[in-house]
Amino acid sequence: MNSLPPRDLGFARLDTDRLARTGDPEVVLAAHKTPEQTIASLRALAAAHPGRAVLATRCDEPTRATCRREFEAARVDDEGRTVVLGPVPVPSGTVAVVTAGTSDLPVAREAMATAEVFGTTATLIPDVGVAGLHRLLAEVDRLAAADAIVAIAGTDGALPGVLAGLVGTPVIAVPTSVGYGASLGGLAALLTMLNACAPGLTVVNIDNGFGAAVAAARIARRVGRAR
Amino acid sequence: MNSLPPRDLGFARLDTDRLARTGDPEVVLAAHKTPEQTIASLRALAAAHPGRAVLATRCDEPTRATCRREFEAARVDDEGRTVVLGPVPVPSGTVAVVTAGTSDLPVAREAMATAEVFGTTATLIPDVGVAGLHRLLAEVDRLAAADAIVAIAGTDGALPGVLAGLVGTPVIAVPTSVGYGASLGGLAALLTMLNACAPGLTVVNIDNGFGAAVAAARIARRVGRAR
Amino acid sequence: MNSLPPRDLGFARLDTDRLARTGDPEVVLAAHKTPEQTIASLRALAAAHPGRAVLATRCDEPTRATCRREFEAARVDDEGRTVVLGPVPVPSGTVAVVTAGTSDLPVAREAMATAEVFGTTATLIPDVGVAGLHRLLAEVDRLAAADAIVAIAGTDGALPGVLAGLVGTPVIAVPTSVGYGASLGGLAALLTMLNACAPGLTVVNIDNGFGAAVAAARIARRVGRAR
Amino acid sequence: MNSLPPRDLGFARLDTDRLARTGDPEVVLAAHKTPEQTIASLRALAAAHPGRAVLATRCDEPTRATCRREFEAARVDDEGRTVVLGPVPVPSGTVAVVTAGTSDLPVAREAMATAEVFGTTATLIPDVGVAGLHRLLAEVDRLAAADAIVAIAGTDGALPGVLAGLVGTPVIAVPTSVGYGASLGGLAALLTMLNACAPGLTVVNIDNGFGAAVAAARIARRVGRAR
Amino acid sequence: MNSLPPRDLGFARLDTDRLARTGDPEVVLAAHKTPEQTIASLRALAAAHPGRAVLATRCDEPTRATCRREFEAARVDDEGRTVVLGPVPVPSGTVAVVTAGTSDLPVAREAMATAEVFGTTATLIPDVGVAGLHRLLAEVDRLAAADAIVAIAGTDGALPGVLAGLVGTPVIAVPTSVGYGASLGGLAALLTMLNACAPGLTVVNIDNGFGAAVAAARIARRVGRAR
Amino acid sequence: MNSLPPRDLGFARLDTDRLARTGDPEVVLAAHKTPEQTIASLRALAAAHPGRAVLATRCDEPTRATCRREFEAARVDDEGRTVVLGPVPVPSGTVAVVTAGTSDLPVAREAMATAEVFGTTATLIPDVGVAGLHRLLAEVDRLAAADAIVAIAGTDGALPGVLAGLVGTPVIAVPTSVGYGASLGGLAALLTMLNACAPGLTVVNIDNGFGAAVAAARIARRVGRAR
Amino acid sequence: MNSLPPRDLGFARLDTDRLARTGDPEVVLAAHKTPEQTIASLRALAAAHPGRAVLATRCDEPTRATCRREFEAARVDDEGRTVVLGPVPVPSGTVAVVTAGTSDLPVAREAMATAEVFGTTATLIPDVGVAGLHRLLAEVDRLAAADAIVAIAGTDGALPGVLAGLVGTPVIAVPTSVGYGASLGGLAALLTMLNACAPGLTVVNIDNGFGAAVAAARIARRVGRAR
Amino acid sequence: MNSLPPRDLGFARLDTDRLARTGDPEVVLAAHKTPEQTIASLRALAAAHPGRAVLATRCDEPTRATCRREFEAARVDDEGRTVVLGPVPVPSGTVAVVTAGTSDLPVAREAMATAEVFGTTATLIPDVGVAGLHRLLAEVDRLAAADAIVAIAGTDGALPGVLAGLVGTPVIAVPTSVGYGASLGGLAALLTMLNACAPGLTVVNIDNGFGAAVAAARIARRVGRAR
Repeated sequence: MNSLPPRDLGFARLDTDRLARTGDPEVVLAAHKTPEQTIASLRALAAAHPGRAVLATRCDEPTRATCRREFEAARVDDEGRTVVLGPVPVPSGTVAVVTAGTSDLPVAREAMATAEVFGTTATLIPDVGVAGLHRLLAEVDRLAAADAIVAIAGTDGALPGVLAGLVGTPVIAVPTSVGYGASLGGLAALLTMLNACAPGLTVVNIDNGFGAAVAAARIARRVGRAR
Repeated sequence: MNSLPPRDLGFARLDTDRLARTGDPEVVLAAHKTPEQTIASLRALAAAHPGRAVLATRCDEPTRATCRREFEAARVDDEGRTVVLGPVPVPSGTVAVVTAGTSDLPVAREAMATAEVFGTTATLIPDVGVAGLHRLLAEVDRLAAADAIVAIAGTDGALPGVLAGLVGTPVIAVPTSVGYGASLGGLAALLTMLNACAPGLTVVNIDNGFGAAVAAARIARRVGRAR
Repeated sequence: MNSLPPRDLGFARLDTDRLARTGDPEVVLAAHKTPEQTIASLRALAAAHPGRAVLATRCDEPTRATCRREFEAARVDDEGRTVVLGPVPVPSGTVAVVTAGTSDLPVAREAMATAEVFGTTATLIPDVGVAGLHRLLAEVDRLAAADAIVAIAGTDGALPGVLAGLVGTPVIAVPTSVGYGASLGGLAALLTMLNACAPGLTVVNIDNGFGAAVAAARIARRVGRAR
Repeated sequence: MNSLPPRDLGFARLDTDRLARTGDPEVVLAAHKTPEQTIASLRALAAAHPGRAVLATRCDEPTRATCRREFEAARVDDEGRTVVLGPVPVPSGTVAVVTAGTSDLPVAREAMATAEVFGTTATLIPDVGVAGLHRLLAEVDRLAAADAIVAIAGTDGALPGVLAGLVGTPVIAVPTSVGYGASLGGLAALLTMLNACAPGLTVVNIDNGFGAAVAAARIARRVGRAR
Repeated sequence: MNSLPPRDLGFARLDTDRLARTGDPEVVLAAHKTPEQTIASLRALAAAHPGRAVLATRCDEPTRATCRREFEAARVDDEGRTVVLGPVPVPSGTVAVVTAGTSDLPVAREAMATAEVFGTTATLIPDVGVAGLHRLLAEVDRLAAADAIVAIAGTDGALPGVLAGLVGTPVIAVPTSVGYGASLGGLAALLTMLNACAPGLTVVNIDNGFGAAVAAARIARRVGRAR
Repeated sequence: MNSLPPRDLGFARLDTDRLARTGDPEVVLAAHKTPEQTIASLRALAAAHPGRAVLATRCDEPTRATCRREFEAARVDDEGRTVVLGPVPVPSGTVAVVTAGTSDLPVAREAMATAEVFGTTATLIPDVGVAGLHRLLAEVDRLAAADAIVAIAGTDGALPGVLAGLVGTPVIAVPTSVGYGASLGGLAALLTMLNACAPGLTVVNIDNGFGAAVAAARIARRVGRAR
Repeated sequence: MNSLPPRDLGFARLDTDRLARTGDPEVVLAAHKTPEQTIASLRALAAAHPGRAVLATRCDEPTRATCRREFEAARVDDEGRTVVLGPVPVPSGTVAVVTAGTSDLPVAREAMATAEVFGTTATLIPDVGVAGLHRLLAEVDRLAAADAIVAIAGTDGALPGVLAGLVGTPVIAVPTSVGYGASLGGLAALLTMLNACAPGLTVVNIDNGFGAAVAAARIARRVGRAR
Repeated sequence: MNSLPPRDLGFARLDTDRLARTGDPEVVLAAHKTPEQTIASLRALAAAHPGRAVLATRCDEPTRATCRREFEAARVDDEGRTVVLGPVPVPSGTVAVVTAGTSDLPVAREAMATAEVFGTTATLIPDVGVAGLHRLLAEVDRLAAADAIVAIAGTDGALPGVLAGLVGTPVIAVPTSVGYGASLGGLAALLTMLNACAPGLTVVNIDNGFGAAVAAARIARRVGRAR
């Protein structure tokens, strides 16, 4: 535990040692922060990691507007609600990001931006839900060729389990809060994925495109670098 | 409401008017009854409906043994836990009963016996769960040809939703309590089915092969008789 | 699986093969879509199915306004939040849509529009909840004469179970989110329906008038066509 | 609060003042007690209230056997699992105890014994569940004539709500743990009852025939005594 | 079931027979209705019951404003969200309405108005929660003197159970949605009340001051009239 | 129970005896109150306890604005939503308030103000969540030196359990509603804390910084005064 | 973190450093262990802490029998399911352990044994539940005199909240799994305690008499030692 | 989808094509099967895959005994409840299997056997739960050196989240049903893991050591083979 001391912002202690421990810098989850707190955290992280892109997720509209104003070079994605600052790593390995429906796209966009910041190449394959199975079957070869798959689905959450029976690629499933009534804000999809019969499937929190992409990127770039 | 008075057994009032109202006699749910109560109910129902088969479901081993002793002509199914007395109707229409896995067979057996008592022909297609999709795809034509489908699945409960995207036949989904952990005794499968994206799917209680088969038989025989 | 390729809209892949597989074209669930996405999907579906009505459900006010502007011939229902484009099929068979209360009417309206688009004739029987039982008993003959029943109820969700004890017609129960406190957003009504004692009842997701009507229409038109 | 000191049994402090405060002596809930603890409590309560019956509920088989051995004059009900010692009060007012099904009888028996010990006359009307509505309608006049109604139902728990729409008598609803799957051990019936539309209905804990009967007896005897 | 035909408003069937069946006219639950629907229902009920007050509950601000405009003689309570039209019955018996805290007052106000419309006299005893027990103990005699008690509490919901141990009067407990976090919108208070150890307590839905008052009024006026 | 009579404000009965019983005056939970009710309660409490600070928690913006206007000497904390009036006690003992993240700060601020009013010295140690463990390990000595610890965490709620394994100081854990999806509004963090393996940890309601600080202050000042 | 290396038993790593970190040695939770694993762990802990008592909790009958055989000097409590080996510390401070009912005694016994091993004096005050409030009020002075209180209650869990309004002593509440139906295995009591209005109350896991006693002992002995 | 036809055993259709699709043969989940069904499935799988080990998980004692009798060469693990037949692949890559406590060992054993059958090398690091953090810190280097980590924990489930903050290795978290009360059969641990702040963590079903090991093995051997 001979680690770098955290950088103290008063309201936050940045974990600037995380890059050394885990290979990736800390990320700002903007969800419960003021725009000012997010800006200050991003600025400090960028200063601590000049050679590596830093990321903020769940940026609401005011935060994204402030970022655009404050950081000229920021790449801001309105659909995925992400902000990226600084140079992304040379990518290694490939991740396929698939969604069951159109409404899952914001989560997919968060995953795409994250994958890039965490050093891998991501491809988007949207709207291949199991209600029209042939749309998925047409993409099996592309999916099998990826080093890792992020599979995103709301409502019944059935897509990742069906997909995991078709390929041997590691599948990381993301339930989304898309749905109504007995979808219980994404809990139904989460339970479906946890109970999938095909092995090799693992799951993250509801709408957590970020976490899924970090896991997928770490797999993909390990394979990619070893190749 | 000029209905037949119920037959009073002291502990129960048999709804002998139900045949006139709904086209089918009352059924004995043996689950919370003593063998003696089940026997007495079956005997009274058989006496009230001499020309029509009567059914008891959820018969435990002692009840099944007593039925075998008391009713020489009883058809007893140990796997499906059903007891049938009396002549079944001439069947009309067809029902396909599909299961996702081997462990769903007891529920399927209950559905098969019920379908027969409720006047339709049932065919069993077991173990076509979505983890090995080609098993299901190989049966699509047979499934599309049925007048109604009972689709039974535990764990993730994904089979009925995938199936409902492949055929236009009415699909009645039965979640089963097969699974562990986050399957929550069948609640996960139930939620999956309620949230399925493909329309035309309806759902019954967990492990309720009986109720699904009644609904399917009523659909199938209406179609069959109209043909 | 020699199916038509899906039509790719970038953000969506329309399942234009669904009509061939299931007898009905795909439907647009507008709930999580922008007005633009819904319009584009409707337009593509209408182009793919010129001889058959296409449907969008859960259209919010901006989407309905845009539809009125963009599609001169659209039939827009503000209460049921549906938009229909193109000629509906010649109806076959009949569906009765009953509600327990006045507040269940939006769900009933969604079911009515859906039944028409899916090729059957629907009749509305509102406000016959079990707190005033004679209102329901007065309608039993009309209900028994239908080929399928959609029974819609919030709060305690008791109507469909009582109804299923009165008629042999297939009953598809729709719990609604009407209620407060321990109604748990419709979960209480859903559980009541899943546990109904009278067999022949099947259930769909909370507020899913669309799904119930598709199932009912498929039953009714099969019977109607066979007649 | 100038109350009688509780009687100290070491493991328990009997609330011998309760008769003065509430009009009824304390009752022994035997469920989590050893037979010896139940016997000792009953004996001490009987000694403190020689002129008034004392009651133990939820007595398992060993406790009932011990009670039969220890108390010659005990009235033991094996179905309702109750033990009564000493003279019951002269009854006042009437309570109707109705059940939806045969399997609800143990709860009804607990309610019957309790009503008697708490000083009212109870009548049992079993197996009038809403799946065969005419059974209930045939009893409406008898039910309306009671001073209070205890309505017991498992599975969907719909009986009390339907009944409360038919009479103005206070209805106390008891959900039972009869059912399976989505009945959730009686929670589904409990929720149904809490959400009933007809007013005048109140609810007790699952399987709590005792509590319902105490409330009903207190209503009935107040009315009876006032008459 | 020789009952009056329901009055058909198109969107609603008024249960004008309810007065004959249960002794009290139907009530309008305005919660999910437009102001126009509520006005029309109130007007029809008032016309059907000219000699008896009619009630609407859960009236939001626009509905209350419309009522004030449309019905000169309406008694409108902004805190309790009730509207009353027409002469209340001569009261019979007494009901005590107690609350645990200040924040439970809206539910208490709904109960007060309901009790009056349902023909009994109600007294309010606010803010006697168990965190300051002496406040409750000081009111025990007044509470014991009532014919029925409505006990309203949010957060931990402990008041009704403590009260039921102090008096023999029937206690009807109302959980409220007052609280935060693990109060789960009133479910915690509801569970506390259902599990209270002192018998004689019955429970209604969360925030259901109306239902509790109907039950209490029916008890109180039976006792009052019998006296 | 020879206690001071409560002060009656009409809508509330102030428990002015609480100081005598428990050592601390009553506190105003402003959450479900109007600004006027909060002001009136604060004023009455301040009048009853001129020598001791009184506190209102969960004051929304209008309430805080009114307090600033009405009470010149009020100390108002916008982040912690607290208002304090009157002289705080001479502090005794020390409490450490730690948070897992920046977003837990409002709850920490509520705890800080409460600790001061309840007579102890509080120190804030923010943003030491377990994702960057060295931040916590660097503070262990400071934490071990406190008389009691309030540990605040949302999302996975892991901080208090890790901390309780590092020190023997009593730890009071506060789950927060910070998180999304399967955090279930703080229930996930609450469950984590209740299941922590290290003993010595106790838990309060979600976001209940106030309650945690009262418990911690009572421990700390007992130790401090005994020293 | 210059800590003692854990002692490796193959299946377990004893945390022999815990005494240094927290002031108390590790404890064996026997619940999921074989008798052999528990014996081996106890033996190793006793060897590592010859001057200090070691404790095993949740010992089932076979484990207790084996302990009696293997450790001549073991103090085994069959009701509390604890085993203690070695000399307990000289006690400091006092803890009152109160229960709502007789059925809560096993949890109280676990707390009593734990308090002794963790170096404080514990007094048992059983069966003072709020259904007979005077039993509790008679003990208030004894309770107020303790340095900390462990308050144990099942069913509605109301005791600790009432108690916390009567005294300023820190109260640690233990919900128990005593109850049925809507007690949900202790969850109802847990929620009641988390929502208690009187501050100063903290809560532990269901049936966790051990954890409550550790927290109480740490408070009591700090106060005791400081005195 | 030019796949091998499934092998039909009457009660099951073996998915013998799975090896071609995913790189690994089907596995028998013995949990809901009779010993005879498990034996028949294992035998058929072994015949179909003579060059590759086949696996059965969740084998109860009778099934394990039958396997030992029927298959001379079977490797049976009583703690992990696995049966392996046939030659395991030459391992590639490494997986670390860590547990929080001794009671998590059965799940770890299932993971160990699975990892071997799925072609990787697994190392066990037991009992490093966060209540004694130095046990975990001592193993960080070994953990960081693995290609993937399976982290198993019950009760609070905090271990995987702490671990994911210390290393950049992909961590697959397995909640276990070890715990009591508010652990809710493993749901508490599951929720903790889904809400972990450190990214890179993914989760499987409660007690699903098998699924976690398949995912880990697929990651590890991809990396291993690429090296």
